[in-house]
Amino acid sequence: MDKIEQSTQRYEAVIRLALERGFFNPASEIYGDAPAGFWDYGPLGASLKRKFIELWRRELVRRDGMLEIDGAQVLSKNVFTASGHLKSFVDPIARCSRCRAVYRVDKLIEESVGIHVPERLDLDKIEKLVLENNIRCSKCGGELTDFSYFNMMFKLNVGATDVDAYLRPETCQSIFVDFIRLFKVMRCKLPIGFAQVGKSFRNEISPRQGLIRMREFYQAEIEVFFNPRKADELPKAEPLMDYTLRLKPLNSEEIIEIACREALGEKLLSSKLVAYYLALIQQFYEKAGIPREKIRLRQLGEDERAFYAVEAWDLEVETSLGWIELVACNNRGDYDLSGHQEVSGHEMTVQDDGEKVLPHVFELSMGIDRSIYCIIESALSNIGGRKVLRLNPELAPVHVAVLPLISREPFITRAKQIYDLLRLDYDVVYDDSGSIGRRYARQDEIGTPYCITVDHQTFEDDTVTIRYRDTTHQIRIETSKLLEFLSKNFRIS
Amino acid sequence: MDKIEQSTQRYEAVIRLALERGFFNPASEIYGDAPAGFWDYGPLGASLKRKFIELWRRELVRRDGMLEIDGAQVLSKNVFTASGHLKSFVDPIARCSRCRAVYRVDKLIEESVGIHVPERLDLDKIEKLVLENNIRCSKCGGELTDFSYFNMMFKLNVGATDVDAYLRPETCQSIFVDFIRLFKVMRCKLPIGFAQVGKSFRNEISPRQGLIRMREFYQAEIEVFFNPRKADELPKAEPLMDYTLRLKPLNSEEIIEIACREALGEKLLSSKLVAYYLALIQQFYEKAGIPREKIRLRQLGEDERAFYAVEAWDLEVETSLGWIELVACNNRGDYDLSGHQEVSGHEMTVQDDGEKVLPHVFELSMGIDRSIYCIIESALSNIGGRKVLRLNPELAPVHVAVLPLISREPFITRAKQIYDLLRLDYDVVYDDSGSIGRRYARQDEIGTPYCITVDHQTFEDDTVTIRYRDTTHQIRIETSKLLEFLSKNFRIS
Repeated sequence: MDKIEQSTQRYEAVIRLALERGFFNPASEIYGDAPAGFWDYGPLGASLKRKFIELWRRELVRRDGMLEIDGAQVLSKNVFTASGHLKSFVDPIARCSRCRAVYRVDKLIEESVGIHVPERLDLDKIEKLVLENNIRCSKCGGELTDFSYFNMMFKLNVGATDVDAYLRPETCQSIFVDFIRLFKVMRCKLPIGFAQVGKSFRNEISPRQGLIRMREFYQAEIEVFFNPRKADELPKAEPLMDYTLRLKPLNSEEIIEIACREALGEKLLSSKLVAYYLALIQQFYEKAGIPREKIRLRQLGEDERAFYAVEAWDLEVETSLGWIELVACNNRGDYDLSGHQEVSGHEMTVQDDGEKVLPHVFELSMGIDRSIYCIIESALSNIGGRKVLRLNPELAPVHVAVLPLISREPFITRAKQIYDLLRLDYDVVYDDSGSIGRRYARQDEIGTPYCITVDHQTFEDDTVTIRYRDTTHQIRIETSKLLEFLSKNFRIS
Repeated sequence: MDKIEQSTQRYEAVIRLALERGFFNPASEIYGDAPAGFWDYGPLGASLKRKFIELWRRELVRRDGMLEIDGAQVLSKNVFTASGHLKSFVDPIARCSRCRAVYRVDKLIEESVGIHVPERLDLDKIEKLVLENNIRCSKCGGELTDFSYFNMMFKLNVGATDVDAYLRPETCQSIFVDFIRLFKVMRCKLPIGFAQVGKSFRNEISPRQGLIRMREFYQAEIEVFFNPRKADELPKAEPLMDYTLRLKPLNSEEIIEIACREALGEKLLSSKLVAYYLALIQQFYEKAGIPREKIRLRQLGEDERAFYAVEAWDLEVETSLGWIELVACNNRGDYDLSGHQEVSGHEMTVQDDGEKVLPHVFELSMGIDRSIYCIIESALSNIGGRKVLRLNPELAPVHVAVLPLISREPFITRAKQIYDLLRLDYDVVYDDSGSIGRRYARQDEIGTPYCITVDHQTFEDDTVTIRYRDTTHQIRIETSKLLEFLSKNFRIS
């Protein structure tokens, strides 16, 4: 086993690669007052993230025929009255009576004495747990006081007269608010998925671990609206009914490998619709390059579920940091549309074959930044002493590098011509600095799947070599065939 | 002339199309407390915007070999101390002493009596203008009072202990803050462009006119770092030196059509680098489908420029609402890097062929939402009585529609098979509702460049028709050649 196989070392190896090669870095990092939980994607990270989103668009949005919108991040106060976030999107906090440090007290209890504190437990019960277990300030040992629930939304004052509005804590609310308009103008029929990718914001008390728990983060959310009486009528689900899910149901310590059809037969899942979307999302991560055995769909108990969920599965991926939740798959029932219907006074029912229905919602709420972390960690490899980032080639930040074998003319000019030929349609770098071996190594480390090299033979027969990242195997190809080679290998630009 | 040629009618036609076909709509619109200046893109608008950004990426970022990053939207207070926004990103406001309405008072003076108020004019001079011209509250006629400068940034309280941070008012600050790290790890040489696309936020007193002046908006910003002593040494600029710019220099009432080379000879532009990037950006809008004669580059006088600019050109497009600024092209000098160097204490100089340089910055700061408005307005057409949105096909929200000639079997099944064949790689709709003429009209109105129709002959020789949007001309093509046809016509997916 290579040393980066070991757990904290793998995490540190990701962060080192991120900082040293331009994947991501803390935002405002040159300033001492930079708040934690905000990150910038550098050129390589931005490219990887963009391609990950394109893969999501292809494998979920387009494959399923969903509609994708892009809503404002700032929404009115009433939106969050209706959604329940003003009341329920809260974390319990407490303050040290001596040094004034603030703690997310449920996590503090969990970390100090290993007791799991259920969501939305009464404050006096939380205080009792703290007293009984003699939990104190981790910094100065002071007593904890001022127990309260802290709302995690960021409030904004809009205009000079200070109208309250909020940064969205999840992207999906604009989908619910715009649902009736869009269902009509887009001539929809149930079931129909709406998708959105964008930033969300949560004022975490203690952000942690790089891209894993951020205050500003990217989500890709899918909200599938369906007639609850027809959740088992879904012809398009058929081809996936033999797909093998990796389920960890409540009350099971083991991961069960089971086909959708059988999971339905054994009533592990509530409907064919749920089985179909769980299959789609698991399949997506396999296509993104996460090894199948590192993926599980874990069912959540009542005390773990978000306040709007009646049934919930988390897609989790195993990393050196443990199992990480990447996608919350929530059956939200009619919670959202009935809430907005009540507070706004706008009717949210639609016609479904002559029946008037308030649709239910099944959601796939994906954390993009954490997914990027997991993809990078899982791709870190050591092949025969070479550091290689074994990304799915379609996700690689750089599609192809163009290198002159020797850093002088005429190699340089010819290599730059090839770079110019490719760079409008692909992410290409040109590099002539250092030995060819060192340049290959640089590309291996960031996951570039192909290196094109201009060598002596190029000037005889107009061919170049293409070197494959994982095998270092090289083929020769005519330069006139390069665009065709790339278009066969990359569907996502 | 068709009636939608008339000005307010063209604006209203865009808004009607946007609302009725799912391009965009006001955010939180079902609620009475929705603050103005926030908009949601529906499925067609989100698709058009995405393709516009892809075109920008191809024609500017990739063509010029820039590096694209994606930074946090929330940045620390010190970032905006250094950038000058805390002090200078302000609008003058005043309040009605009777009804408490708040006005952006420079705009009120301009609209009431036509006097242009320069940027950053002293408050007592503004108050004097109001008194001299007897300008009063437009709502109740009350006197104006409480003159002050209002900072347009949205402030956030981060964490439970309330650390101040701000939503960025422009995307570029993360480029400046991260510059030194990225210049090193990406092994850059001057000149080098950094690009970023994302949301920015400005707490406008009076947002207006749909996508034109929003409080939350998309920018695509490019910051080119260069050695000020070498702004005329730019070999890659050569091919564009014969490109004809449409300049409106200060003190000229006319637009001058002039090649870059001559504009430099006549000292209308300060350097070859400025000429090159102005040419790139004008060319980009021509490629996006804005008619050349509707584009101008207008030079700004000192009293119009942003507080950080030493030389400024606005790329403007003529619409029914007048000339609209789409891109601010600012020579920011060393304003940004020297500010961040001073406040952070981090040295921002880099090596350029052995010379130690604090780079200067030339910026192309693009408003995406306004660009989308202008592209739609400019594409609204009436061709022989047909309503057609003559978008550049690469920007069309729907690449292709697949239609059964008659809405029954076997036409439906065959059309759905073709839809399935194409939909992973392209934005495709299937439509079998209503007469074929009506379905063509529906696609024309949203700018779909091609309609594929399954007709009787399809079952004889496996061909379909492709109908061209602008001409209604039809060709026949084998279904096996459809993917090839589309890949030739669309480079942006």
